[in-house]
Amino acid sequence: MIKGHVFIATSLDGFIARPDGDIAWLLKRDDPSEDHGYNSFMANIDGIIMGRGTYEKVAAMEQWYYEKPVIVLSKTLRQQDLPARLADKVRIMNLTPREIMKLLEEQSWKHVYVDGEQVIQSFLRENLIDDLVITQVPVLIGQGLSLFGSINEDISLKLLKTTPFPSGLLQTHYKICQN
Amino acid sequence: MIKGHVFIATSLDGFIARPDGDIAWLLKRDDPSEDHGYNSFMANIDGIIMGRGTYEKVAAMEQWYYEKPVIVLSKTLRQQDLPARLADKVRIMNLTPREIMKLLEEQSWKHVYVDGEQVIQSFLRENLIDDLVITQVPVLIGQGLSLFGSINEDISLKLLKTTPFPSGLLQTHYKICQN
Repeated sequence: MIKGHVFIATSLDGFIARPDGDIAWLLKRDDPSEDHGYNSFMANIDGIIMGRGTYEKVAAMEQWYYEKPVIVLSKTLRQQDLPARLADKVRIMNLTPREIMKLLEEQSWKHVYVDGEQVIQSFLRENLIDDLVITQVPVLIGQGLSLFGSINEDISLKLLKTTPFPSGLLQTHYKICQN
Repeated sequence: MIKGHVFIATSLDGFIARPDGDIAWLLKRDDPSEDHGYNSFMANIDGIIMGRGTYEKVAAMEQWYYEKPVIVLSKTLRQQDLPARLADKVRIMNLTPREIMKLLEEQSWKHVYVDGEQVIQSFLRENLIDDLVITQVPVLIGQGLSLFGSINEDISLKLLKTTPFPSGLLQTHYKICQN
């Protein structure tokens, strides 16, 4: 069965970015010599699902970082809106979380990287996330985009692993408990 | 110099209680056979500062759990409002965080346990907290009283220690970095 995975960094107060999307507070506390496991996580992933907000942020960067297919969930963007360099790398889909996961399962995807505030929150609400790797950055930023949002009922998790890094980053790996 | 200390449990999404103050989600995931360090933390504490909300919650319980003096910061409560059994255990003070810490320092207090959502947040904003021991409970509850709130500028922390417990609780000890 297809599984959704989250791999993300947050401030200690639970934000993935400032209100304007800024993540400089994170980057300046990152130690590039530490292996936080992103590459080994990505090696097992069939592709990435993100929302329009996250897509526009990464599309604005000089380099396109993803080697795996990227699916952008959007009601308004269209495939022809993509710049030519991304036409074969990104698919725009106007589908619900459940619909896109069903479609990708039919295409034999097994592991999906789910990214971006609203997309992660909607996948959590729909019980489409299997586990989360959260890298906690030792700073309070006070406001911003939250990793977690409203849910319909409590979600229990199982702590699988904890990895503190010399930089002060703390990585935790939680699996969602299925009711 | 007098120091403020936080010792608290939160859900993975950063709440210390549900909107109505309920913490059953926490209690049912607690393993009383595990030592989460509360007693050794309290042994070093001269007294507790809390707000009216927290006071009313603990005062409504059958038993009074605190052996150390408790100071309740309130603009509206008065000393004569206290039930007789608490008259010598609780002091009501209408002071700002900075004023109460100055007063207690003059009374030779060294270590203050700062508790409750609004009091912790106001002490953090005033740079009156030295460190935080946060026990993260593996559950998302979606809404409630937040440990952290708005701040005037970023607060950097240093991760001192991480202790995962077999129950799935994860305790982290962070020290506030002074700018």
